[in-house]
Amino acid sequence: MSSGIGSHISRQFEDELEDIRNKVMAMGGLIEKQLQQAINCLLISDSALAEDVIKTDTAVNKMELDIDEECTQILARRQPTASDLRLVITVIKTINDLERIGDEAKRIARMALELMDKDVGKARLQAIKHLGEHVKTVLHHILDAFARMDTTEAYQIYRQDKQVDLEYESTLRQTITFMMEDPRSIPWALNIIWIARALERIGDRATNISEYIIFFVKGKDVRHTGVEGIEETIKDDL
Amino acid sequence: MSSGIGSHISRQFEDELEDIRNKVMAMGGLIEKQLQQAINCLLISDSALAEDVIKTDTAVNKMELDIDEECTQILARRQPTASDLRLVITVIKTINDLERIGDEAKRIARMALELMDKDVGKARLQAIKHLGEHVKTVLHHILDAFARMDTTEAYQIYRQDKQVDLEYESTLRQTITFMMEDPRSIPWALNIIWIARALERIGDRATNISEYIIFFVKGKDVRHTGVEGIEETIKDDL
Repeated sequence: MSSGIGSHISRQFEDELEDIRNKVMAMGGLIEKQLQQAINCLLISDSALAEDVIKTDTAVNKMELDIDEECTQILARRQPTASDLRLVITVIKTINDLERIGDEAKRIARMALELMDKDVGKARLQAIKHLGEHVKTVLHHILDAFARMDTTEAYQIYRQDKQVDLEYESTLRQTITFMMEDPRSIPWALNIIWIARALERIGDRATNISEYIIFFVKGKDVRHTGVEGIEETIKDDL
Repeated sequence: MSSGIGSHISRQFEDELEDIRNKVMAMGGLIEKQLQQAINCLLISDSALAEDVIKTDTAVNKMELDIDEECTQILARRQPTASDLRLVITVIKTINDLERIGDEAKRIARMALELMDKDVGKARLQAIKHLGEHVKTVLHHILDAFARMDTTEAYQIYRQDKQVDLEYESTLRQTITFMMEDPRSIPWALNIIWIARALERIGDRATNISEYIIFFVKGKDVRHTGVEGIEETIKDDL
C-alpha cells in the first residue's frame, strides 16, 4: 500500500510501535538512574538520596502500567503479526523485568539506609561497591542492546552473567568470614548479603532481557537453551 | 454465528483457549508437587528426592515454553480481543511467575541437600517447616483461584501475603539469634535464611497471580494499587 487510508493506518501503527519502544527506553533510563543512586547511597551515606530512590519506585510502576496498557491496546486494535507481534510481546516481558530491577534498586536503597545507622568501615564495602559498578554497567549495556535490538550485545551480557555470579559468591564468602570472625558484625553483614543478592538478581534479569531481544530479532525463544543454544541461534550475527 | 464455518472456527478457538488453561493447571500441578517435595526434603533428609525436585525443573521449563509458544500462535492466528485477549495475556504472565516458583522450589531442594551434610537439629527447622507449609497452601489456593478465575479467592491470597511476610521475618530473626549465639551455626543458618527467602518470594509471586486473575475477570490492572485498589475493583464479588 503506497497511499490512501491503508498506508495512513500502517504509518500510525509504526508510530505506535516506535512510541512504546521509546517509552521502554525512558523507563530504562529512570531505572538506570535509580540503580546508580542506590549504589551511591552505599558509599556516601546520603539518606535523602536513598529516600529519593525509594520514591522513584512509584514513577517506575506507573510507567510499567502505562506501557503494558498501550501494548494490550495495540494487540486488541492492530492485531499485529510476525515481528510486530514479537515486538509487543518482547516489550511486555521486558518492562516486567525492568520494573523488578527497579524494585531491587529500591531494596538496595533501603539496606543502605539501615547500614547508615551501623558502624561499617568503608573498607568492608569495597566488594559490594565493585559488584554494584559491574551490575550498573550490565544494565547500561542491556538497555543499549534493547535500543538497537542488537543480538551480539545481548549475547555478551548473557555470557557476562557468570562473572557477576562469581563476584556475588566472592562477596558472600568474604561477608560470611566477617560474620564468623565477629558475630557483632552479623546485622550489618546481613545487609551487605541482601544488597549483593539484589545486585545478582539484577544481573539475572538483564539476561532475561537478552533472551527477549534475541526472540524479537530471530523469532526463536532461547530461554533455557543455555549459551550454546543462543550461540547457535545468533551465529550469523557473531 | 449459529452454524457454518464461522461457528466451527469459533468453537476451535474456544478449544484452544481451554487447552492453554488446562496446560497452565498441569504446569501448576507439577510445581505444587515440586514444592511439596522440596519441603519434605528438609524434614526427611532424602537426597534422591532433592535430586528429583532439581530435575523436574527441565519439565517445568519446557511446559512454560510450550504454553508461551501456543499463546503467541493464538495472538497471531486468532487475533483475540476483549476477554479472550485478556486470557492470553493473563496466561503469558502467570506461567512466567509459575516458572519462577519452580526455580525457588529447586533452590530450596539445593539448600536442603547442603543442610543434609550439616548437623542441624530438627527443632531448629520448625519455623521454616511452618513457613513452608503455609506457602504450600498459598500456592494450592492460587492455582485453585486460577482454575476457577475466582477473584474472591485471589483477593484472600493477596491479603494473606502479609502473614507470610511476618512469618518470614520471624524466621529470619530467630535464625539471626542462632548465628549470634553460636557463630559455628552461620553456614547452616544461612541455608535456612535462603530457604525462608525463597518461600517468601513464592508468596510474592502468588500475589502477582492474584493480580492477573483480577485483571482477567475485571479488565482492570490492579498492580501497585494495594489492598484498597483491589477491594474497590472486586467489590461486587466480595
